[in-house]
Amino acid sequence: MSEVLNGTQRFKLTLEYDGAAFFGWQRNHHGMTVQQALEEAIARMCGQKTGVPVPLTVCGRTDSGVHALGQVAHGDFPQRFDARTILRAVNALVLPWPVAVVQAEAVRDDFHARFSCRGRSYRYRISTRAAQPVLERGRVWHLRKRLDVDAMQAAAAYLIGKHDFTSFRAVYCQAAHPVRDVERITVKAVPEAEEIHLEISAQAFLHHMVRNITGSLVKVGMGIEPPEWVGEVLAARDRRLAGQTAPSQGLYFVSARY
Amino acid sequence: MSEVLNGTQRFKLTLEYDGAAFFGWQRNHHGMTVQQALEEAIARMCGQKTGVPVPLTVCGRTDSGVHALGQVAHGDFPQRFDARTILRAVNALVLPWPVAVVQAEAVRDDFHARFSCRGRSYRYRISTRAAQPVLERGRVWHLRKRLDVDAMQAAAAYLIGKHDFTSFRAVYCQAAHPVRDVERITVKAVPEAEEIHLEISAQAFLHHMVRNITGSLVKVGMGIEPPEWVGEVLAARDRRLAGQTAPSQGLYFVSARY
Repeated sequence: MSEVLNGTQRFKLTLEYDGAAFFGWQRNHHGMTVQQALEEAIARMCGQKTGVPVPLTVCGRTDSGVHALGQVAHGDFPQRFDARTILRAVNALVLPWPVAVVQAEAVRDDFHARFSCRGRSYRYRISTRAAQPVLERGRVWHLRKRLDVDAMQAAAAYLIGKHDFTSFRAVYCQAAHPVRDVERITVKAVPEAEEIHLEISAQAFLHHMVRNITGSLVKVGMGIEPPEWVGEVLAARDRRLAGQTAPSQGLYFVSARY
Repeated sequence: MSEVLNGTQRFKLTLEYDGAAFFGWQRNHHGMTVQQALEEAIARMCGQKTGVPVPLTVCGRTDSGVHALGQVAHGDFPQRFDARTILRAVNALVLPWPVAVVQAEAVRDDFHARFSCRGRSYRYRISTRAAQPVLERGRVWHLRKRLDVDAMQAAAAYLIGKHDFTSFRAVYCQAAHPVRDVERITVKAVPEAEEIHLEISAQAFLHHMVRNITGSLVKVGMGIEPPEWVGEVLAARDRRLAGQTAPSQGLYFVSARY
Protein backbone atom coordinates (compact mmCIF):
# COMPACT_ATOMS: atom_id res chain seq x y z
CA MET A 1 0.00 0.00 0.00
CA SER A 2 1.08 3.56 -0.72
CA GLU A 3 2.38 5.63 2.20
CA VAL A 4 1.00 8.89 0.81
CA LEU A 5 -1.30 10.52 3.38
CA ASN A 6 -3.36 12.50 0.92
CA GLY A 7 -4.51 11.28 -2.43
CA THR A 8 -5.96 7.96 -3.40
CA GLN A 9 -5.42 4.25 -3.01
CA ARG A 10 -6.40 1.86 -5.80
CA PHE A 11 -8.59 -1.08 -4.78
CA LYS A 12 -9.42 -4.25 -6.67
CA LEU A 13 -13.06 -5.21 -6.03
CA THR A 14 -14.37 -8.73 -6.64
CA LEU A 15 -18.09 -8.55 -7.38
CA GLU A 16 -21.11 -10.83 -7.41
CA TYR A 17 -24.37 -9.72 -9.02
CA ASP A 18 -27.73 -10.95 -10.21
CA GLY A 19 -27.89 -9.75 -13.80
CA ALA A 20 -31.70 -9.99 -13.94
CA ALA A 21 -31.99 -6.77 -11.94
CA PHE A 22 -29.70 -4.66 -14.12
CA PHE A 23 -29.40 -3.23 -17.59
CA GLY A 24 -25.89 -4.65 -17.83
CA TRP A 25 -22.65 -3.37 -16.32
CA GLN A 26 -22.14 -0.08 -18.09
CA ARG A 27 -24.12 3.08 -17.36
CA ASN A 28 -26.79 3.71 -19.97
CA HIS A 29 -30.13 5.44 -20.39
CA HIS A 30 -32.31 2.32 -20.15
CA GLY A 31 -32.19 1.89 -16.38
CA MET A 32 -30.05 0.90 -13.42
CA THR A 33 -26.73 -0.74 -14.18
CA VAL A 34 -24.24 -2.53 -11.94
CA GLN A 35 -21.71 0.26 -12.44
CA GLN A 36 -24.21 2.96 -11.46
CA ALA A 37 -25.46 1.09 -8.37
CA LEU A 38 -21.90 0.61 -7.10
CA GLU A 39 -20.63 4.10 -7.98
CA GLU A 40 -23.63 5.66 -6.23
CA ALA A 41 -23.07 3.53 -3.11
CA ILE A 42 -19.40 4.57 -3.08
CA ALA A 43 -20.40 8.24 -3.49
CA ARG A 44 -22.67 7.92 -0.44
CA MET A 45 -19.82 6.30 1.50
CA CYS A 46 -17.70 9.34 0.57
CA GLY A 47 -20.47 11.66 1.76
CA GLN A 48 -21.26 12.97 -1.72
CA LYS A 49 -24.81 13.30 -2.93
CA THR A 50 -23.90 13.92 -6.56
CA GLY A 51 -21.00 13.16 -8.85
CA VAL A 52 -18.83 10.08 -9.18
CA PRO A 53 -15.90 10.42 -6.76
CA VAL A 54 -14.65 6.91 -7.58
CA PRO A 55 -15.29 5.85 -11.19
CA LEU A 56 -14.98 2.09 -11.62
CA THR A 57 -13.23 0.25 -14.44
CA VAL A 58 -14.41 -3.30 -15.03
CA CYS A 59 -12.67 -6.43 -16.27
CA GLY A 60 -15.46 -7.67 -18.54
CA ARG A 61 -18.52 -5.58 -19.33
CA THR A 62 -21.56 -7.82 -19.11
CA ASP A 63 -24.84 -7.41 -20.99
CA SER A 64 -28.28 -7.00 -19.48
CA GLY A 65 -29.29 -10.21 -17.67
CA VAL A 66 -25.77 -11.69 -17.42
CA HIS A 67 -24.70 -12.64 -13.87
CA ALA A 68 -21.35 -12.47 -12.11
CA LEU A 69 -19.81 -14.64 -9.43
CA GLY A 70 -16.33 -13.12 -9.56
CA GLN A 71 -16.35 -10.01 -11.75
CA VAL A 72 -13.43 -7.64 -11.07
CA ALA A 73 -13.34 -3.83 -11.09
CA HIS A 74 -10.90 -1.24 -9.84
CA GLY A 75 -11.25 2.27 -8.53
CA ASP A 76 -9.12 4.92 -6.81
CA PHE A 77 -10.53 5.57 -3.33
CA PRO A 78 -9.78 8.42 -0.91
CA GLN A 79 -6.95 7.25 1.39
CA ARG A 80 -9.10 7.25 4.53
CA PHE A 81 -10.90 4.04 3.49
CA ASP A 82 -9.43 0.60 4.09
CA ALA A 83 -10.49 -2.70 2.46
CA ARG A 84 -12.73 -3.78 5.32
CA THR A 85 -14.56 -0.45 5.44
CA ILE A 86 -15.09 -0.43 1.68
CA LEU A 87 -16.50 -3.95 1.71
CA ARG A 88 -18.89 -3.32 4.58
CA ALA A 89 -19.97 0.21 3.67
CA VAL A 90 -20.50 -0.37 -0.05
CA ASN A 91 -22.41 -3.59 0.64
CA ALA A 92 -24.68 -1.81 3.12
CA LEU A 93 -25.22 1.27 0.94
CA VAL A 94 -25.82 -0.57 -2.35
CA LEU A 95 -28.90 -2.34 -0.99
CA PRO A 96 -31.49 -3.25 -2.17
CA TRP A 97 -29.65 -3.77 -5.49
CA PRO A 98 -28.49 -7.39 -5.82
CA VAL A 99 -24.77 -6.75 -6.13
CA ALA A 100 -22.09 -7.24 -3.49
CA VAL A 101 -18.39 -6.63 -3.06
CA VAL A 102 -17.17 -10.12 -2.16
CA GLN A 103 -13.57 -8.99 -1.69
CA ALA A 104 -11.79 -5.62 -1.58
CA GLU A 105 -8.00 -5.56 -1.90
CA ALA A 106 -5.53 -2.67 -1.99
CA VAL A 107 -3.44 -2.87 -5.18
CA ARG A 108 -0.65 -0.92 -6.86
CA ASP A 109 -1.56 2.02 -9.07
CA ASP A 110 -0.52 0.07 -12.16
CA PHE A 111 -3.15 -2.63 -11.58
CA HIS A 112 -5.87 -2.34 -14.22
CA ALA A 113 -9.01 -4.52 -13.99
CA ARG A 114 -9.23 -4.78 -17.77
CA PHE A 115 -5.73 -4.44 -19.19
CA SER A 116 -3.89 -6.39 -16.47
CA CYS A 117 -6.25 -9.35 -16.86
CA ARG A 118 -4.55 -12.49 -18.21
CA GLY A 119 -7.60 -14.73 -18.42
CA ARG A 120 -11.37 -14.62 -18.09
CA SER A 121 -13.66 -17.56 -17.30
CA TYR A 122 -17.36 -17.80 -18.05
CA ARG A 123 -19.94 -20.48 -17.26
CA TYR A 124 -23.13 -21.10 -19.22
CA ARG A 125 -25.86 -23.11 -17.47
CA ILE A 126 -28.53 -25.03 -19.41
CA SER A 127 -31.40 -26.77 -17.61
CA THR A 128 -32.62 -29.87 -19.44
CA ARG A 129 -35.36 -31.02 -17.08
CA ALA A 130 -39.02 -31.27 -18.02
CA ALA A 131 -40.32 -28.95 -15.29
CA GLN A 132 -39.48 -25.26 -15.49
CA PRO A 133 -36.80 -23.95 -13.13
CA VAL A 134 -38.19 -22.59 -9.89
CA LEU A 135 -35.35 -21.91 -7.47
CA GLU A 136 -33.09 -21.36 -10.51
CA ARG A 137 -35.56 -19.22 -12.46
CA GLY A 138 -33.71 -16.50 -14.37
CA ARG A 139 -30.43 -18.27 -13.66
CA VAL A 140 -30.40 -20.93 -16.40
CA TRP A 141 -31.46 -21.41 -20.03
CA HIS A 142 -34.36 -23.86 -19.83
CA LEU A 143 -34.14 -26.01 -22.93
CA ARG A 144 -36.23 -29.03 -21.93
CA LYS A 145 -34.23 -31.10 -24.43
CA ARG A 146 -31.86 -34.02 -24.15
CA LEU A 147 -28.42 -32.84 -25.22
CA ASP A 148 -25.55 -35.07 -26.34
CA VAL A 149 -22.74 -33.82 -24.10
CA ASP A 150 -20.05 -35.86 -25.89
CA ALA A 151 -21.03 -34.39 -29.26
CA MET A 152 -20.95 -30.89 -27.77
CA GLN A 153 -17.49 -31.52 -26.30
CA ALA A 154 -16.26 -32.84 -29.66
CA ALA A 155 -17.63 -29.73 -31.38
CA ALA A 156 -16.02 -27.47 -28.76
CA ALA A 157 -12.59 -28.93 -29.61
CA TYR A 158 -12.69 -27.09 -32.97
CA LEU A 159 -12.75 -23.77 -31.09
CA ILE A 160 -9.76 -24.32 -28.79
CA GLY A 161 -6.73 -22.20 -29.66
CA LYS A 162 -6.15 -18.99 -31.57
CA HIS A 163 -8.77 -18.37 -34.25
CA ASP A 164 -10.66 -15.66 -36.09
CA PHE A 165 -14.01 -15.77 -34.25
CA THR A 166 -15.94 -13.56 -36.70
CA SER A 167 -18.64 -16.25 -36.97
CA PHE A 168 -19.31 -16.05 -33.22
CA ARG A 169 -19.17 -12.27 -32.84
CA ALA A 170 -22.09 -9.89 -32.40
CA VAL A 171 -22.73 -7.75 -35.47
CA TYR A 172 -22.20 -4.62 -33.37
CA CYS A 173 -19.04 -5.88 -31.62
CA GLN A 174 -16.58 -3.00 -31.32
CA ALA A 175 -13.36 -5.00 -30.90
CA ALA A 176 -10.50 -3.90 -33.17
CA HIS A 177 -9.82 -7.41 -34.46
CA PRO A 178 -11.69 -10.74 -34.34
CA VAL A 179 -8.85 -13.07 -33.29
CA ARG A 180 -9.10 -14.60 -29.82
CA ASP A 181 -7.24 -17.43 -28.08
CA VAL A 182 -9.58 -19.90 -26.35
CA GLU A 183 -7.71 -21.84 -23.67
CA ARG A 184 -10.39 -24.26 -22.60
CA ILE A 185 -14.00 -25.28 -23.20
CA THR A 186 -15.50 -27.97 -21.01
CA VAL A 187 -19.04 -29.28 -21.50
CA LYS A 188 -20.16 -31.29 -18.50
CA ALA A 189 -23.40 -32.86 -17.32
CA VAL A 190 -24.50 -32.03 -13.79
CA PRO A 191 -27.01 -34.88 -13.42
CA GLU A 192 -28.24 -34.09 -9.90
CA ALA A 193 -29.38 -30.66 -11.13
CA GLU A 194 -30.43 -31.92 -14.60
CA GLU A 195 -28.16 -29.23 -16.01
CA ILE A 196 -25.38 -28.98 -18.55
CA HIS A 197 -22.59 -26.53 -17.82
CA LEU A 198 -20.29 -25.03 -20.40
CA GLU A 199 -17.07 -23.63 -18.91
CA ILE A 200 -14.96 -21.46 -21.21
CA SER A 201 -11.71 -19.58 -20.61
CA ALA A 202 -9.78 -17.19 -22.82
CA GLN A 203 -7.53 -14.20 -22.42
CA ALA A 204 -10.37 -12.10 -23.85
CA PHE A 205 -13.69 -12.54 -25.65
CA LEU A 206 -15.61 -10.80 -28.41
CA HIS A 207 -19.08 -9.40 -27.78
CA HIS A 208 -21.66 -12.22 -27.43
CA MET A 209 -18.92 -14.76 -28.16
CA VAL A 210 -19.79 -17.14 -25.29
CA ARG A 211 -23.53 -16.95 -25.98
CA ASN A 212 -23.01 -17.50 -29.72
CA ILE A 213 -20.70 -20.46 -29.10
CA THR A 214 -23.29 -21.88 -26.66
CA GLY A 215 -26.08 -21.53 -29.22
CA SER A 216 -24.00 -23.39 -31.80
CA LEU A 217 -22.93 -26.16 -29.42
CA VAL A 218 -26.58 -26.65 -28.47
CA LYS A 219 -27.44 -27.22 -32.15
CA VAL A 220 -24.87 -30.03 -32.12
CA GLY A 221 -26.12 -31.33 -28.76
CA MET A 222 -29.64 -31.57 -30.19
CA GLY A 223 -28.35 -33.54 -33.17
CA ILE A 224 -29.29 -30.87 -35.73
CA GLU A 225 -25.66 -30.55 -36.81
CA PRO A 226 -22.62 -32.86 -36.43
CA PRO A 227 -19.63 -31.71 -34.32
CA GLU A 228 -17.50 -30.87 -37.37
CA TRP A 229 -20.10 -28.31 -38.44
CA VAL A 230 -18.75 -26.00 -35.69
CA GLY A 231 -15.31 -26.21 -37.33
CA GLU A 232 -16.86 -25.28 -40.70
CA VAL A 233 -18.74 -22.34 -39.19
CA LEU A 234 -15.52 -21.09 -37.55
CA ALA A 235 -13.60 -21.35 -40.83
CA ALA A 236 -16.30 -19.53 -42.81
CA ARG A 237 -15.99 -16.34 -40.71
CA ASP A 238 -19.66 -15.56 -41.25
CA ARG A 239 -21.96 -14.81 -38.31
CA ARG A 240 -25.02 -15.90 -40.31
CA LEU A 241 -23.86 -19.52 -40.29
CA ALA A 242 -23.62 -20.02 -36.50
CA GLY A 243 -26.42 -20.96 -34.11
CA GLN A 244 -28.67 -18.58 -32.20
CA THR A 245 -27.35 -16.35 -29.45
CA ALA A 246 -28.13 -18.20 -26.20
CA PRO A 247 -30.19 -16.07 -23.76
CA SER A 248 -28.34 -13.87 -21.28
CA GLN A 249 -29.87 -15.42 -18.14
CA GLY A 250 -27.74 -18.58 -18.30
CA LEU A 251 -24.40 -16.75 -18.48
CA TYR A 252 -22.05 -16.10 -15.54
CA PHE A 253 -18.79 -14.16 -15.43
CA VAL A 254 -17.00 -16.58 -13.08
CA SER A 255 -13.49 -15.25 -12.54
CA ALA A 256 -10.58 -13.19 -13.83
CA ARG A 257 -6.92 -14.13 -13.58
CA TYR A 258 -4.13 -11.56 -13.07
CA MET B 1 -52.59 -47.94 -12.71
CA SER B 2 -56.27 -48.63 -12.23
CA GLU B 3 -58.15 -49.97 -15.23
CA VAL B 4 -61.39 -48.23 -14.25
CA LEU B 5 -62.56 -46.02 -17.13
CA ASN B 6 -64.54 -43.58 -15.06
CA GLY B 7 -63.55 -42.23 -11.69
CA THR B 8 -60.20 -41.00 -10.51
CA GLN B 9 -56.56 -41.97 -10.45
CA ARG B 10 -54.35 -40.99 -7.54
CA PHE B 11 -51.08 -39.26 -8.43
CA LYS B 12 -48.04 -38.59 -6.31
CA LEU B 13 -46.58 -35.18 -7.17
CA THR B 14 -43.00 -34.22 -6.33
CA LEU B 15 -42.80 -30.45 -5.94
CA GLU B 16 -40.19 -27.70 -5.95
CA TYR B 17 -41.04 -24.19 -4.76
CA ASP B 18 -39.53 -20.89 -3.75
CA GLY B 19 -41.03 -20.22 -0.34
CA ALA B 20 -40.34 -16.48 -0.52
CA ALA B 21 -43.31 -16.03 -2.85
CA PHE B 22 -45.88 -17.85 -0.71
CA PHE B 23 -47.66 -17.64 2.62
CA GLY B 24 -46.69 -21.24 3.32
CA TRP B 25 -48.20 -24.44 1.97
CA GLN B 26 -51.69 -24.41 3.43
CA ARG B 27 -54.50 -22.17 2.19
CA ASN B 28 -55.04 -19.18 4.49
CA HIS B 29 -56.37 -15.65 4.43
CA HIS B 30 -53.01 -13.87 4.30
CA GLY B 31 -52.25 -14.44 0.63
CA MET B 32 -51.26 -16.95 -2.00
CA THR B 33 -50.12 -20.34 -0.78
CA VAL B 34 -48.44 -23.23 -2.60
CA GLN B 35 -51.56 -25.36 -2.17
CA GLN B 36 -53.83 -22.70 -3.64
CA ALA B 37 -51.54 -21.98 -6.62
CA LEU B 38 -51.38 -25.68 -7.50
CA GLU B 39 -55.05 -26.47 -6.89
CA GLU B 40 -56.08 -23.50 -9.05
CA ALA B 41 -53.74 -24.61 -11.86
CA ILE B 42 -55.22 -28.12 -11.67
CA ALA B 43 -58.76 -26.69 -11.74
CA ARG B 44 -57.89 -24.78 -14.93
CA MET B 45 -56.45 -27.98 -16.42
CA CYS B 46 -59.81 -29.64 -15.61
CA GLY B 47 -61.67 -26.77 -17.30
CA GLN B 48 -63.17 -25.48 -14.04
CA LYS B 49 -63.19 -21.80 -13.22
CA THR B 50 -64.23 -22.25 -9.59
CA GLY B 51 -64.04 -24.99 -6.99
CA VAL B 52 -61.31 -27.45 -6.15
CA PRO B 53 -61.77 -30.55 -8.33
CA VAL B 54 -58.52 -32.10 -7.04
CA PRO B 55 -57.72 -31.23 -3.40
CA LEU B 56 -54.08 -31.90 -2.56
CA THR B 57 -52.73 -33.56 0.58
CA VAL B 58 -49.14 -32.71 1.43
CA CYS B 59 -46.37 -34.66 3.14
CA GLY B 60 -45.02 -31.81 5.26
CA ARG B 61 -46.80 -28.47 5.54
CA THR B 62 -44.19 -25.73 5.28
CA ASP B 63 -44.38 -22.25 6.81
CA SER B 64 -44.23 -18.97 4.96
CA GLY B 65 -40.76 -18.51 3.42
CA VAL B 66 -39.71 -22.17 3.63
CA HIS B 67 -38.56 -23.70 0.32
CA ALA B 68 -38.96 -27.16 -1.14
CA LEU B 69 -36.77 -29.21 -3.46
CA GLY B 70 -38.70 -32.47 -3.14
CA GLN B 71 -41.97 -31.88 -1.31
CA VAL B 72 -44.60 -34.56 -1.97
CA ALA B 73 -48.37 -34.22 -2.33
CA HIS B 74 -51.11 -36.48 -3.61
CA GLY B 75 -54.44 -35.87 -5.30
CA ASP B 76 -57.14 -37.85 -7.09
CA PHE B 77 -57.28 -36.76 -10.72
CA PRO B 78 -59.96 -37.42 -13.34
CA GLN B 79 -58.96 -40.57 -15.24
CA ARG B 80 -58.41 -38.76 -18.53
CA PHE B 81 -55.11 -37.25 -17.35
CA ASP B 82 -51.83 -39.14 -17.46
CA ALA B 83 -48.60 -38.29 -15.61
CA ARG B 84 -46.99 -36.50 -18.54
CA THR B 85 -50.05 -34.32 -19.16
CA ILE B 86 -50.35 -33.41 -15.48
CA LEU B 87 -46.71 -32.41 -15.28
CA ARG B 88 -46.78 -30.29 -18.42
CA ALA B 89 -50.23 -28.73 -17.97
CA VAL B 90 -49.93 -27.89 -14.27
CA ASN B 91 -46.46 -26.42 -14.80
CA ALA B 92 -47.71 -24.24 -17.63
CA LEU B 93 -50.89 -23.14 -15.84
CA VAL B 94 -49.29 -22.42 -12.46
CA LEU B 95 -47.05 -19.70 -13.90
CA PRO B 96 -45.96 -17.11 -12.84
CA TRP B 97 -45.98 -18.65 -9.36
CA PRO B 98 -42.57 -20.18 -8.55
CA VAL B 99 -43.67 -23.75 -7.98
CA ALA B 100 -43.25 -26.73 -10.30
CA VAL B 101 -44.26 -30.36 -10.47
CA VAL B 102 -40.87 -32.05 -10.87
CA GLN B 103 -42.38 -35.53 -11.13
CA ALA B 104 -45.92 -36.93 -11.43
CA GLU B 105 -46.45 -40.62 -10.79
CA ALA B 106 -49.64 -42.74 -10.76
CA VAL B 107 -49.97 -44.50 -7.39
CA ARG B 108 -52.41 -46.87 -5.68
CA ASP B 109 -55.39 -45.42 -3.86
CA ASP B 110 -53.89 -46.35 -0.50
CA PHE B 111 -50.86 -44.12 -1.03
CA HIS B 112 -51.05 -41.12 1.29
CA ALA B 113 -48.49 -38.29 1.01
CA ARG B 114 -48.54 -37.69 4.76
CA PHE B 115 -49.44 -40.97 6.44
CA SER B 116 -47.48 -43.30 4.13
CA CYS B 117 -44.32 -41.24 4.60
CA ARG B 118 -41.56 -43.14 6.41
CA GLY B 119 -38.99 -40.36 6.59
CA ARG B 120 -38.59 -36.65 5.90
CA SER B 121 -35.34 -34.81 5.22
CA TYR B 122 -34.73 -31.10 5.65
CA ARG B 123 -31.70 -28.94 4.90
CA TYR B 124 -30.89 -25.66 6.63
CA ARG B 125 -28.41 -23.35 4.84
CA ILE B 126 -26.37 -20.73 6.72
CA SER B 127 -24.13 -18.26 4.86
CA THR B 128 -21.10 -17.20 6.88
CA ARG B 129 -19.42 -14.86 4.41
CA ALA B 130 -18.80 -11.16 5.04
CA ALA B 131 -20.69 -9.91 1.96
CA GLN B 132 -24.45 -10.31 1.86
CA PRO B 133 -25.87 -13.05 -0.37
CA VAL B 134 -26.75 -11.84 -3.84
CA LEU B 135 -27.55 -14.83 -6.05
CA GLU B 136 -28.63 -16.71 -2.88
CA ARG B 137 -30.62 -13.83 -1.40
CA GLY B 138 -33.71 -15.16 0.41
CA ARG B 139 -32.28 -18.69 0.15
CA VAL B 140 -29.91 -18.73 3.16
CA TRP B 141 -29.65 -17.37 6.70
CA HIS B 142 -26.86 -14.80 6.48
CA LEU B 143 -25.03 -14.93 9.80
CA ARG B 144 -21.71 -13.31 8.92
CA LYS B 145 -20.15 -15.25 11.80
CA ARG B 146 -17.52 -17.96 12.04
CA LEU B 147 -19.19 -21.13 13.29
CA ASP B 148 -17.43 -24.09 14.90
CA VAL B 149 -18.81 -26.96 12.81
CA ASP B 150 -17.27 -29.66 15.04
CA ALA B 151 -18.92 -28.18 18.15
CA MET B 152 -22.24 -28.02 16.30
CA GLN B 153 -21.91 -31.66 15.22
CA ALA B 154 -21.05 -32.69 18.80
CA ALA B 155 -24.12 -30.81 20.06
CA ALA B 156 -26.33 -32.42 17.40
CA ALA B 157 -25.37 -35.88 18.70
CA TYR B 158 -27.49 -35.24 21.81
CA LEU B 159 -30.58 -34.99 19.60
CA ILE B 160 -30.21 -38.25 17.65
CA GLY B 161 -32.74 -40.93 18.58
CA LYS B 162 -36.17 -40.95 20.20
CA HIS B 163 -36.70 -38.01 22.55
CA ASP B 164 -39.31 -35.65 23.93
CA PHE B 165 -38.63 -32.54 21.80
CA THR B 166 -40.80 -30.12 23.84
CA SER B 167 -37.84 -27.73 24.12
CA PHE B 168 -37.62 -27.45 20.33
CA ARG B 169 -41.34 -27.22 19.57
CA ALA B 170 -43.30 -24.09 18.64
CA VAL B 171 -45.62 -22.90 21.41
CA TYR B 172 -48.60 -23.29 19.06
CA CYS B 173 -47.56 -26.72 17.73
CA GLN B 174 -50.67 -28.87 17.36
CA ALA B 175 -49.06 -32.32 17.44
CA ALA B 176 -50.70 -34.79 19.84
CA HIS B 177 -47.44 -35.72 21.54
CA PRO B 178 -43.90 -34.26 21.58
CA VAL B 179 -41.85 -37.44 21.06
CA ARG B 180 -40.00 -37.73 17.74
CA ASP B 181 -37.27 -40.03 16.46
CA VAL B 182 -34.37 -38.18 14.80
CA GLU B 183 -32.43 -40.50 12.50
CA ARG B 184 -29.60 -38.24 11.46
CA ILE B 185 -28.22 -34.73 11.83
CA THR B 186 -25.16 -33.77 9.80
CA VAL B 187 -23.50 -30.38 10.11
CA LYS B 188 -21.11 -29.78 7.23
CA ALA B 189 -19.06 -26.89 5.94
CA VAL B 190 -19.41 -26.06 2.25
CA PRO B 191 -16.27 -23.94 1.95
CA GLU B 192 -16.57 -23.01 -1.74
CA ALA B 193 -19.94 -21.35 -0.98
CA GLU B 194 -18.89 -20.09 2.48
CA GLU B 195 -21.95 -21.90 3.82
CA ILE B 196 -22.77 -24.37 6.57
CA HIS B 197 -25.45 -26.95 5.84
CA LEU B 198 -27.44 -28.77 8.45
CA GLU B 199 -29.07 -31.96 7.15
CA ILE B 200 -31.69 -33.55 9.38
CA SER B 201 -33.89 -36.62 8.88
CA ALA B 202 -36.70 -38.04 11.00
CA GLN B 203 -39.88 -40.00 10.50
CA ALA B 204 -41.74 -36.79 11.44
CA PHE B 205 -41.07 -33.37 12.97
CA LEU B 206 -42.83 -31.00 15.36
CA HIS B 207 -43.73 -27.48 14.27
CA HIS B 208 -40.60 -25.29 13.97
CA MET B 209 -38.48 -28.19 15.21
CA VAL B 210 -35.76 -27.89 12.53
CA ARG B 211 -35.55 -24.11 12.86
CA ASN B 212 -35.42 -24.30 16.67
CA ILE B 213 -32.71 -26.96 16.56
CA THR B 214 -30.77 -24.83 14.07
CA GLY B 215 -30.99 -21.76 16.31
CA SER B 216 -29.65 -23.77 19.26
CA LEU B 217 -26.82 -25.39 17.27
CA VAL B 218 -25.82 -21.92 16.04
CA LYS B 219 -25.49 -20.75 19.66
CA VAL B 220 -23.03 -23.61 20.16
CA GLY B 221 -21.28 -22.86 16.87
CA MET B 222 -20.74 -19.27 17.97
CA GLY B 223 -19.22 -20.45 21.24
CA ILE B 224 -21.98 -18.96 23.41
CA GLU B 225 -22.85 -22.40 24.80
CA PRO B 226 -20.89 -25.71 24.92
CA PRO B 227 -22.19 -28.75 22.99
CA GLU B 228 -23.54 -30.45 26.15
CA TRP B 229 -25.89 -27.49 26.69
CA VAL B 230 -28.06 -28.85 23.86
CA GLY B 231 -28.43 -32.11 25.85
CA GLU B 232 -29.47 -30.12 28.92
CA VAL B 233 -32.02 -28.09 26.94
CA LEU B 234 -33.48 -31.30 25.50
CA ALA B 235 -33.77 -32.90 28.96
CA ALA B 236 -35.42 -29.81 30.48
CA ARG B 237 -38.44 -29.99 28.11
CA ASP B 238 -38.78 -26.20 28.22
CA ARG B 239 -39.00 -24.15 25.01
CA ARG B 240 -37.71 -21.04 26.82
CA LEU B 241 -34.27 -22.59 27.27
CA ALA B 242 -33.46 -23.29 23.61
CA GLY B 243 -31.98 -20.88 21.08
CA GLN B 244 -33.88 -18.59 18.74
CA THR B 245 -36.01 -19.92 15.88
CA ALA B 246 -33.78 -19.68 12.79
CA PRO B 247 -35.42 -17.66 9.97
CA SER B 248 -37.59 -19.49 7.45
CA GLN B 249 -35.59 -18.46 4.37
CA GLY B 250 -32.72 -20.90 5.04
CA LEU B 251 -34.96 -23.98 5.33
CA TYR B 252 -35.62 -26.55 2.56
CA PHE B 253 -37.91 -29.56 2.54
CA VAL B 254 -35.52 -31.83 0.62
CA SER B 255 -37.22 -35.20 0.28
CA ALA B 256 -39.73 -37.72 1.62
CA ARG B 257 -39.19 -41.47 1.79
CA TYR B 258 -42.04 -43.97 1.28
